[in-house]
Amino acid sequence: MTTQHEMAHRVAEPAELGVGMRFSLHPHCDDFVDVILGALRDAEQAGLTDGLVTSTDDVSTYVGATTGPAEQRLARYLAGVVAAAAGRTPTGHVVAHVLLSRGCPGERTCDLAVTRLPRPAAVDVPATGVRAVAQWSLYPLLDAGFDVGSDAGDGHGDHMRHITDAIERARQRGAATEPRHYATRLSGDLADVLATAVDAWAAVGSEVPHVVTHLTVSVGSPSAGSER
Amino acid sequence: MTTQHEMAHRVAEPAELGVGMRFSLHPHCDDFVDVILGALRDAEQAGLTDGLVTSTDDVSTYVGATTGPAEQRLARYLAGVVAAAAGRTPTGHVVAHVLLSRGCPGERTCDLAVTRLPRPAAVDVPATGVRAVAQWSLYPLLDAGFDVGSDAGDGHGDHMRHITDAIERARQRGAATEPRHYATRLSGDLADVLATAVDAWAAVGSEVPHVVTHLTVSVGSPSAGSER
Repeated sequence: MTTQHEMAHRVAEPAELGVGMRFSLHPHCDDFVDVILGALRDAEQAGLTDGLVTSTDDVSTYVGATTGPAEQRLARYLAGVVAAAAGRTPTGHVVAHVLLSRGCPGERTCDLAVTRLPRPAAVDVPATGVRAVAQWSLYPLLDAGFDVGSDAGDGHGDHMRHITDAIERARQRGAATEPRHYATRLSGDLADVLATAVDAWAAVGSEVPHVVTHLTVSVGSPSAGSER
Repeated sequence: MTTQHEMAHRVAEPAELGVGMRFSLHPHCDDFVDVILGALRDAEQAGLTDGLVTSTDDVSTYVGATTGPAEQRLARYLAGVVAAAAGRTPTGHVVAHVLLSRGCPGERTCDLAVTRLPRPAAVDVPATGVRAVAQWSLYPLLDAGFDVGSDAGDGHGDHMRHITDAIERARQRGAATEPRHYATRLSGDLADVLATAVDAWAAVGSEVPHVVTHLTVSVGSPSAGSER
Protein backbone atom coordinates (compact mmCIF):
# COMPACT_ATOMS: atom_id res chain seq x y z
CA MET A 1 0.00 0.00 0.00
CA THR A 2 1.26 3.43 -0.89
CA THR A 3 1.05 5.96 1.90
CA GLN A 4 0.27 9.58 1.21
CA HIS A 5 3.82 10.46 2.21
CA GLU A 6 5.26 8.06 -0.38
CA MET A 7 2.89 9.40 -3.04
CA ALA A 8 4.07 12.92 -2.32
CA HIS A 9 7.64 11.92 -3.16
CA ARG A 10 7.01 9.83 -6.24
CA VAL A 11 8.78 11.26 -9.29
CA ALA A 12 6.35 12.02 -12.11
CA GLU A 13 6.61 9.99 -15.33
CA PRO A 14 6.94 11.83 -18.71
CA ALA A 15 3.42 10.93 -19.82
CA GLU A 16 1.97 12.10 -16.48
CA LEU A 17 3.73 15.43 -16.80
CA GLY A 18 2.64 15.84 -20.42
CA VAL A 19 6.22 16.17 -21.68
CA GLY A 20 5.95 16.93 -25.37
CA MET A 21 6.09 19.48 -28.14
CA ARG A 22 4.42 20.97 -31.17
CA PHE A 23 6.57 21.97 -34.12
CA SER A 24 6.05 23.28 -37.62
CA LEU A 25 8.51 22.96 -40.50
CA HIS A 26 8.85 25.71 -43.08
CA PRO A 27 10.93 24.76 -46.11
CA HIS A 28 11.20 27.95 -48.17
CA CYS A 29 10.68 26.35 -51.57
CA ASP A 30 7.94 25.60 -54.07
CA ASP A 31 7.80 21.87 -53.35
CA PHE A 32 7.39 22.33 -49.58
CA VAL A 33 4.83 19.52 -49.28
CA ASP A 34 7.29 16.87 -50.46
CA VAL A 35 10.03 18.27 -48.23
CA ILE A 36 7.86 18.26 -45.09
CA LEU A 37 6.40 14.81 -45.66
CA GLY A 38 9.80 13.44 -46.67
CA ALA A 39 11.51 14.82 -43.58
CA LEU A 40 8.85 13.38 -41.25
CA ARG A 41 9.23 10.02 -42.99
CA ASP A 42 13.05 10.15 -42.80
CA ALA A 43 12.95 10.68 -39.04
CA GLU A 44 10.45 7.89 -38.52
CA GLN A 45 12.47 5.46 -40.67
CA ALA A 46 15.58 6.35 -38.66
CA GLY A 47 13.78 5.12 -35.54
CA LEU A 48 13.58 8.58 -34.01
CA THR A 49 9.88 8.25 -33.18
CA ASP A 50 10.49 5.33 -30.79
CA GLY A 51 8.91 6.16 -27.43
CA LEU A 52 6.98 9.06 -28.94
CA VAL A 53 3.49 9.54 -30.29
CA THR A 54 3.09 11.93 -33.23
CA SER A 55 0.11 13.56 -34.86
CA THR A 56 0.30 16.02 -37.78
CA ASP A 57 -2.44 18.49 -38.68
CA ASP A 58 -2.50 21.36 -41.20
CA VAL A 59 -0.56 23.72 -38.91
CA SER A 60 1.92 21.64 -36.94
CA THR A 61 2.96 18.26 -35.59
CA TYR A 62 2.30 17.22 -32.01
CA VAL A 63 4.86 14.92 -30.41
CA GLY A 64 4.29 13.43 -26.98
CA ALA A 65 6.79 11.38 -24.99
CA THR A 66 5.39 8.14 -23.63
CA THR A 67 8.62 6.75 -22.18
CA GLY A 68 11.91 8.21 -21.07
CA PRO A 69 14.35 9.67 -21.62
CA ALA A 70 11.57 12.00 -22.80
CA GLU A 71 13.64 15.11 -23.37
CA GLN A 72 16.36 13.26 -25.28
CA ARG A 73 13.82 11.52 -27.50
CA LEU A 74 12.20 14.85 -28.34
CA ALA A 75 15.51 16.61 -29.01
CA ARG A 76 16.89 13.80 -31.21
CA TYR A 77 13.67 13.56 -33.20
CA LEU A 78 13.59 17.32 -33.75
CA ALA A 79 17.24 17.45 -34.82
CA GLY A 80 16.62 14.58 -37.22
CA VAL A 81 13.53 16.13 -38.80
CA VAL A 82 15.03 19.59 -39.25
CA ALA A 83 18.32 18.23 -40.64
CA ALA A 84 16.38 16.02 -43.04
CA ALA A 85 14.27 18.96 -44.20
CA ALA A 86 17.39 21.07 -44.71
CA GLY A 87 18.90 18.34 -46.86
CA ARG A 88 15.75 18.06 -48.96
CA THR A 89 15.12 21.80 -49.51
CA PRO A 90 16.49 23.05 -52.88
CA THR A 91 16.97 26.61 -51.60
CA GLY A 92 18.59 25.29 -48.41
CA HIS A 93 16.48 27.56 -46.19
CA VAL A 94 14.28 25.87 -43.61
CA VAL A 95 12.77 27.35 -40.47
CA ALA A 96 11.23 25.29 -37.69
CA HIS A 97 9.05 26.70 -35.01
CA VAL A 98 9.01 24.65 -31.81
CA LEU A 99 6.92 24.77 -28.61
CA LEU A 100 8.15 22.46 -25.84
CA SER A 101 5.74 21.97 -22.94
CA ARG A 102 5.69 20.10 -19.64
CA GLY A 103 3.33 19.99 -16.71
CA CYS A 104 0.39 21.83 -18.26
CA PRO A 105 -2.54 21.39 -15.85
CA GLY A 106 -4.98 21.56 -18.76
CA GLU A 107 -3.08 18.76 -20.43
CA ARG A 108 -2.83 16.23 -17.63
CA THR A 109 -4.76 15.61 -14.45
CA CYS A 110 -1.75 14.39 -12.47
CA ASP A 111 -1.71 16.29 -9.17
CA LEU A 112 1.64 17.96 -9.62
CA ALA A 113 1.46 19.62 -6.23
CA VAL A 114 2.06 16.28 -4.52
CA THR A 115 4.39 14.74 -7.07
CA ARG A 116 8.12 15.29 -7.04
CA LEU A 117 9.35 16.80 -10.28
CA PRO A 118 12.01 14.85 -12.17
CA ARG A 119 15.42 16.36 -12.82
CA PRO A 120 16.31 14.87 -16.21
CA ALA A 121 19.89 14.30 -17.32
CA ALA A 122 21.28 16.60 -20.00
CA VAL A 123 20.28 15.36 -23.44
CA ASP A 124 22.82 13.82 -25.80
CA VAL A 125 22.10 14.78 -29.41
CA PRO A 126 24.61 13.71 -32.09
CA ALA A 127 26.06 16.60 -34.11
CA THR A 128 24.21 17.16 -37.39
CA GLY A 129 26.76 19.17 -39.35
CA VAL A 130 23.95 21.65 -39.99
CA ARG A 131 24.57 25.15 -38.71
CA ALA A 132 21.56 26.84 -37.12
CA VAL A 133 20.57 30.06 -35.42
CA ALA A 134 17.54 30.39 -33.19
CA GLN A 135 15.54 32.87 -31.17
CA TRP A 136 14.58 31.27 -27.90
CA SER A 137 12.09 32.22 -25.17
CA LEU A 138 11.32 30.45 -21.89
CA TYR A 139 8.12 30.72 -19.83
CA PRO A 140 8.03 29.40 -16.24
CA LEU A 141 4.29 29.47 -15.44
CA LEU A 142 4.30 30.02 -11.72
CA ASP A 143 1.31 30.08 -9.45
CA ALA A 144 1.38 32.05 -6.24
CA GLY A 145 3.05 30.11 -3.46
CA PHE A 146 4.21 27.19 -5.58
CA ASP A 147 7.76 27.34 -6.80
CA VAL A 148 9.65 24.19 -5.87
CA GLY A 149 12.94 25.90 -6.61
CA SER A 150 12.33 28.39 -3.86
CA ASP A 151 13.46 25.73 -1.36
CA ALA A 152 16.98 26.30 -2.60
CA GLY A 153 17.16 30.04 -2.29
CA ASP A 154 15.45 33.35 -1.91
CA GLY A 155 13.79 33.54 -5.32
CA HIS A 156 10.37 32.38 -4.21
CA GLY A 157 7.88 33.02 -6.94
CA ASP A 158 10.12 35.12 -9.17
CA HIS A 159 9.64 33.99 -12.79
CA MET A 160 12.47 36.17 -14.08
CA ARG A 161 14.99 34.42 -11.80
CA HIS A 162 14.35 31.14 -13.59
CA ILE A 163 14.72 32.84 -16.98
CA THR A 164 17.92 34.73 -16.21
CA ASP A 165 19.50 31.64 -14.59
CA ALA A 166 18.64 29.56 -17.67
CA ILE A 167 20.12 32.15 -20.02
CA GLU A 168 23.30 32.27 -17.95
CA ARG A 169 23.66 28.48 -18.13
CA ALA A 170 23.07 28.60 -21.90
CA ARG A 171 25.71 31.29 -22.21
CA GLN A 172 28.21 29.20 -20.26
CA ARG A 173 27.81 26.25 -22.61
CA GLY A 174 28.44 28.51 -25.58
CA ALA A 175 25.23 28.45 -27.59
CA ALA A 176 23.61 31.62 -26.26
CA THR A 177 25.20 34.61 -27.84
CA GLU A 178 23.14 37.73 -27.33
CA PRO A 179 19.80 39.03 -26.12
CA ARG A 180 17.07 40.14 -28.50
CA HIS A 181 13.78 41.77 -27.60
CA TYR A 182 11.74 38.98 -25.96
CA ALA A 183 14.23 36.27 -26.96
CA THR A 184 17.81 35.05 -26.67
CA ARG A 185 19.81 34.22 -29.76
CA LEU A 186 21.35 30.75 -29.94
CA SER A 187 23.78 29.63 -32.61
CA GLY A 188 25.90 26.60 -33.46
CA ASP A 189 25.35 23.09 -34.71
CA LEU A 190 21.61 22.38 -34.87
CA ALA A 191 22.12 19.67 -32.24
CA ASP A 192 23.73 22.08 -29.77
CA VAL A 193 21.09 24.76 -30.35
CA LEU A 194 18.27 22.33 -29.67
CA ALA A 195 20.02 20.63 -26.74
CA THR A 196 20.63 24.02 -25.09
CA ALA A 197 16.95 24.94 -25.24
CA VAL A 198 15.74 21.49 -24.20
CA ASP A 199 18.14 21.25 -21.24
CA ALA A 200 17.19 24.74 -20.04
CA TRP A 201 13.48 23.94 -20.26
CA ALA A 202 13.91 20.62 -18.43
CA ALA A 203 16.03 22.24 -15.71
CA VAL A 204 13.39 24.87 -14.95
CA GLY A 205 10.87 22.05 -15.06
CA SER A 206 12.56 20.43 -12.08
CA GLU A 207 11.55 23.50 -10.03
CA VAL A 208 8.39 24.82 -11.69
CA PRO A 209 5.74 22.26 -12.73
CA HIS A 210 4.39 24.01 -15.85
CA VAL A 211 7.09 25.32 -18.16
CA VAL A 212 6.96 26.11 -21.87
CA THR A 213 9.74 27.16 -24.20
CA HIS A 214 9.50 28.45 -27.78
CA LEU A 215 12.19 28.35 -30.44
CA THR A 216 12.33 29.74 -33.96
CA VAL A 217 15.18 27.77 -35.55
CA SER A 218 16.61 28.93 -38.87
CA VAL A 219 18.90 26.96 -41.16
CA GLY A 220 20.47 28.27 -44.36
CA SER A 221 19.07 31.79 -44.31
CA PRO A 222 20.54 33.86 -47.14
CA SER A 223 20.50 36.91 -44.86
CA ALA A 224 22.46 35.23 -42.08
CA GLY A 225 25.72 36.55 -43.52
CA SER A 226 28.57 36.58 -41.05
CA GLU A 227 26.36 37.34 -38.06
CA ARG A 228 26.63 34.84 -35.25
CA MET B 1 4.91 67.52 -7.55
CA THR B 2 3.77 63.92 -7.98
CA THR B 3 3.08 62.11 -4.75
CA GLN B 4 3.88 58.45 -4.33
CA HIS B 5 0.15 57.72 -4.18
CA GLU B 6 -0.41 59.42 -7.54
CA MET B 7 2.55 57.55 -9.03
CA ALA B 8 1.06 54.28 -7.86
CA HIS B 9 -2.08 54.94 -9.88
CA ARG B 10 -0.56 56.27 -13.07
CA VAL B 11 -1.44 54.13 -16.08
CA ALA B 12 1.66 52.79 -17.85
CA GLU B 13 2.38 53.97 -21.42
CA PRO B 14 2.95 51.37 -24.19
CA ALA B 15 6.67 52.11 -24.46
CA GLU B 16 7.08 51.82 -20.67
CA LEU B 17 5.34 48.44 -20.67
CA GLY B 18 7.39 47.23 -23.61
CA VAL B 19 4.32 46.47 -25.72
CA GLY B 20 5.58 44.86 -28.90
CA MET B 21 6.14 41.73 -30.88
CA ARG B 22 8.53 39.60 -32.89
CA PHE B 23 7.28 37.85 -35.99
CA SER B 24 8.72 35.76 -38.78
CA LEU B 25 7.19 35.29 -42.20
CA HIS B 26 7.50 32.01 -44.04
CA PRO B 27 6.41 32.11 -47.68
CA HIS B 28 6.61 28.53 -48.91
CA CYS B 29 8.13 29.30 -52.31
CA ASP B 30 11.48 29.51 -54.05
CA ASP B 31 11.53 33.32 -54.22
CA PHE B 32 10.86 33.77 -50.52
CA VAL B 33 13.32 36.67 -50.17
CA ASP B 34 11.39 38.87 -52.59
CA VAL B 35 8.09 37.95 -50.95
CA ILE B 36 9.28 38.78 -47.42
CA LEU B 37 10.97 42.05 -48.36
CA GLY B 38 8.04 43.01 -50.58
CA ALA B 39 5.47 42.36 -47.89
CA LEU B 40 7.41 44.39 -45.31
CA ARG B 41 7.66 47.24 -47.85
CA ASP B 42 3.94 47.04 -48.70
CA ALA B 43 2.95 47.42 -45.06
CA GLU B 44 5.29 50.34 -44.55
CA GLN B 45 4.05 52.11 -47.69
CA ALA B 46 0.46 51.61 -46.49
CA GLY B 47 1.36 53.62 -43.37
CA LEU B 48 1.00 50.62 -41.07
CA THR B 49 4.32 51.28 -39.34
CA ASP B 50 3.18 54.65 -37.98
CA GLY B 51 3.72 54.73 -34.22
CA LEU B 52 5.87 51.61 -34.38
CA VAL B 53 9.59 50.94 -34.53
CA THR B 54 10.70 47.93 -36.57
CA SER B 55 13.97 46.06 -36.86
CA THR B 56 14.51 42.98 -39.04
CA ASP B 57 17.31 40.46 -38.50
CA ASP B 58 18.01 37.10 -40.14
CA VAL B 59 15.41 35.26 -38.01
CA SER B 60 12.54 37.67 -37.38
CA THR B 61 11.29 41.24 -37.22
CA TYR B 62 10.95 43.12 -33.95
CA VAL B 63 8.12 45.65 -33.74
CA GLY B 64 7.76 47.93 -30.75
CA ALA B 65 4.87 50.32 -30.10
CA THR B 66 5.95 53.84 -29.20
CA THR B 67 2.49 55.43 -29.10
CA GLY B 68 -1.04 54.14 -28.65
CA PRO B 69 -3.28 52.54 -29.53
CA ALA B 70 -0.38 50.08 -29.28
CA GLU B 71 -2.31 46.83 -29.63
CA GLN B 72 -4.30 48.08 -32.62
CA ARG B 73 -1.18 49.33 -34.38
CA LEU B 74 0.51 45.95 -33.90
CA ALA B 75 -2.56 43.97 -35.04
CA ARG B 76 -3.15 46.09 -38.15
CA TYR B 77 0.51 45.97 -39.15
CA LEU B 78 0.60 42.21 -38.73
CA ALA B 79 -2.59 41.69 -40.72
CA GLY B 80 -1.21 43.94 -43.47
CA VAL B 81 2.14 42.15 -43.67
CA VAL B 82 0.70 38.63 -43.70
CA ALA B 83 -2.01 39.51 -46.24
CA ALA B 84 0.61 41.15 -48.47
CA ALA B 85 2.87 38.09 -48.23
CA ALA B 86 -0.06 35.79 -49.09
CA GLY B 87 -0.82 37.89 -52.17
CA ARG B 88 2.82 37.77 -53.28
CA THR B 89 3.44 34.02 -52.73
CA PRO B 90 3.03 31.98 -55.93
CA THR B 91 2.10 28.80 -54.05
CA GLY B 92 -0.32 30.78 -51.85
CA HIS B 93 1.01 29.19 -48.64
CA VAL B 94 2.44 31.51 -46.03
CA VAL B 95 2.96 30.89 -42.34
CA ALA B 96 3.71 33.61 -39.82
CA HIS B 97 4.99 32.96 -36.38
CA VAL B 98 4.21 35.71 -33.88
CA LEU B 99 5.29 36.44 -30.30
CA LEU B 100 3.42 39.31 -28.63
CA SER B 101 4.92 40.56 -25.36
CA ARG B 102 4.08 43.17 -22.74
CA GLY B 103 5.54 44.06 -19.38
CA CYS B 104 8.72 42.01 -19.55
CA PRO B 105 10.87 43.13 -16.59
CA GLY B 106 14.02 42.37 -18.57
CA GLU B 107 12.78 44.61 -21.35
CA ARG B 108 11.80 47.74 -19.44
CA THR B 109 12.76 49.16 -16.07
CA CYS B 110 9.35 50.72 -15.38
CA ASP B 111 8.35 49.68 -11.86
CA LEU B 112 5.24 47.78 -12.78
CA ALA B 113 4.41 46.98 -9.18
CA VAL B 114 3.48 50.62 -8.54
CA THR B 115 1.98 51.42 -11.94
CA ARG B 116 -1.63 50.79 -12.85
CA LEU B 117 -1.94 48.51 -15.84
CA PRO B 118 -3.87 49.84 -18.82
CA ARG B 119 -7.03 48.09 -20.02
CA PRO B 120 -6.86 48.68 -23.79
CA ALA B 121 -9.96 48.85 -25.98
CA ALA B 122 -10.61 45.92 -28.30
CA VAL B 123 -8.64 46.33 -31.51
CA ASP B 124 -10.35 47.20 -34.80
CA VAL B 125 -8.69 45.40 -37.72
CA PRO B 126 -10.29 45.71 -41.17
CA ALA B 127 -11.22 42.38 -42.76
CA THR B 128 -8.53 41.11 -45.13
CA GLY B 129 -10.49 38.62 -47.22
CA VAL B 130 -7.70 36.16 -46.42
CA ARG B 131 -8.78 33.03 -44.57
CA ALA B 132 -6.40 31.89 -41.82
CA VAL B 133 -6.05 29.20 -39.21
CA ALA B 134 -3.79 29.54 -36.19
CA GLN B 135 -2.53 27.68 -33.18
CA TRP B 136 -2.48 30.04 -30.25
CA SER B 137 -0.89 29.86 -26.79
CA LEU B 138 -1.03 32.38 -23.94
CA TYR B 139 1.44 32.74 -21.07
CA PRO B 140 0.56 34.87 -18.01
CA LEU B 141 3.91 35.13 -16.19
CA LEU B 142 2.84 35.47 -12.59
CA ASP B 143 5.06 36.07 -9.65
CA ALA B 144 4.00 34.91 -6.21
CA GLY B 145 1.69 37.40 -4.57
CA PHE B 146 1.33 39.70 -7.56
CA ASP B 147 -1.75 39.17 -9.68
CA VAL B 148 -3.71 42.39 -10.06
CA GLY B 149 -6.71 40.43 -11.27
CA SER B 150 -6.98 38.70 -7.94
CA ASP B 151 -8.68 41.82 -6.56
CA ALA B 152 -11.72 40.87 -8.59
CA GLY B 153 -12.14 37.29 -7.45
CA ASP B 154 -10.74 34.22 -5.82
CA GLY B 155 -8.19 33.29 -8.49
CA HIS B 156 -5.19 34.78 -6.78
CA GLY B 157 -2.04 33.62 -8.46
CA ASP B 158 -3.63 30.97 -10.67
CA HIS B 159 -2.11 31.19 -14.14
CA MET B 160 -4.55 28.67 -15.62
CA ARG B 161 -7.55 30.82 -14.65
CA HIS B 162 -6.30 33.60 -16.92
CA ILE B 163 -5.76 31.12 -19.76
CA THR B 164 -9.11 29.37 -19.49
CA ASP B 165 -10.97 32.70 -19.17
CA ALA B 166 -9.21 34.01 -22.29
CA ILE B 167 -10.04 30.87 -24.27
CA GLU B 168 -13.68 31.14 -23.22
CA ARG B 169 -13.85 34.76 -24.40
CA ALA B 170 -12.22 33.77 -27.70
CA ARG B 171 -14.76 31.00 -28.09
CA GLN B 172 -17.64 33.39 -27.49
CA ARG B 173 -16.47 35.70 -30.27
CA GLY B 174 -16.32 32.80 -32.67
CA ALA B 175 -12.66 32.48 -33.64
CA ALA B 176 -11.61 29.79 -31.18
CA THR B 177 -12.77 26.45 -32.40
CA GLU B 178 -11.06 23.63 -30.58
CA PRO B 179 -8.27 22.77 -28.21
CA ARG B 180 -5.02 21.22 -29.38
CA HIS B 181 -2.19 19.95 -27.24
CA TYR B 182 -0.57 23.11 -25.81
CA ALA B 183 -2.59 25.43 -28.07
CA THR B 184 -6.06 26.54 -29.12
CA ARG B 185 -7.08 26.54 -32.75
CA LEU B 186 -8.37 29.81 -34.17
CA SER B 187 -9.91 30.19 -37.62
CA GLY B 188 -11.60 32.84 -39.73
CA ASP B 189 -10.59 35.98 -41.58
CA LEU B 190 -6.94 36.75 -40.82
CA ALA B 191 -8.07 40.00 -39.18
CA ASP B 192 -10.39 38.17 -36.76
CA VAL B 193 -7.81 35.54 -35.92
CA LEU B 194 -5.19 38.16 -35.07
CA ALA B 195 -7.65 40.44 -33.24
CA THR B 196 -8.82 37.53 -31.09
CA ALA B 197 -5.28 36.74 -29.95
CA VAL B 198 -4.30 40.39 -29.47
CA ASP B 199 -7.41 41.23 -27.44
CA ALA B 200 -6.96 38.16 -25.24
CA TRP B 201 -3.33 39.02 -24.58
CA ALA B 202 -4.14 42.68 -23.80
CA ALA B 203 -7.00 41.68 -21.49
CA VAL B 204 -4.78 39.39 -19.41
CA GLY B 205 -2.23 42.20 -19.47
CA SER B 206 -4.63 44.42 -17.57
CA GLU B 207 -4.36 41.96 -14.64
CA VAL B 208 -0.91 40.40 -14.99
CA PRO B 209 2.01 42.71 -15.82
CA HIS B 210 4.13 40.31 -17.89
CA VAL B 211 2.15 38.40 -20.51
CA VAL B 212 3.31 36.75 -23.72
CA THR B 213 1.28 35.07 -26.42
CA HIS B 214 2.46 32.98 -29.37
CA LEU B 215 0.62 32.33 -32.63
CA THR B 216 1.44 30.15 -35.60
CA VAL B 217 -0.76 31.57 -38.35
CA SER B 218 -1.23 29.61 -41.55
CA VAL B 219 -2.71 30.89 -44.80
CA GLY B 220 -3.35 28.81 -47.91
CA SER B 221 -2.15 25.44 -46.62
CA PRO B 222 -2.84 22.71 -49.17
CA SER B 223 -3.54 20.30 -46.31
CA ALA B 224 -6.16 22.53 -44.67
CA GLY B 225 -8.92 20.80 -46.63
CA SER B 226 -12.35 21.25 -45.12
CA GLU B 227 -11.09 21.31 -41.55
CA ARG B 228 -12.07 24.42 -39.62
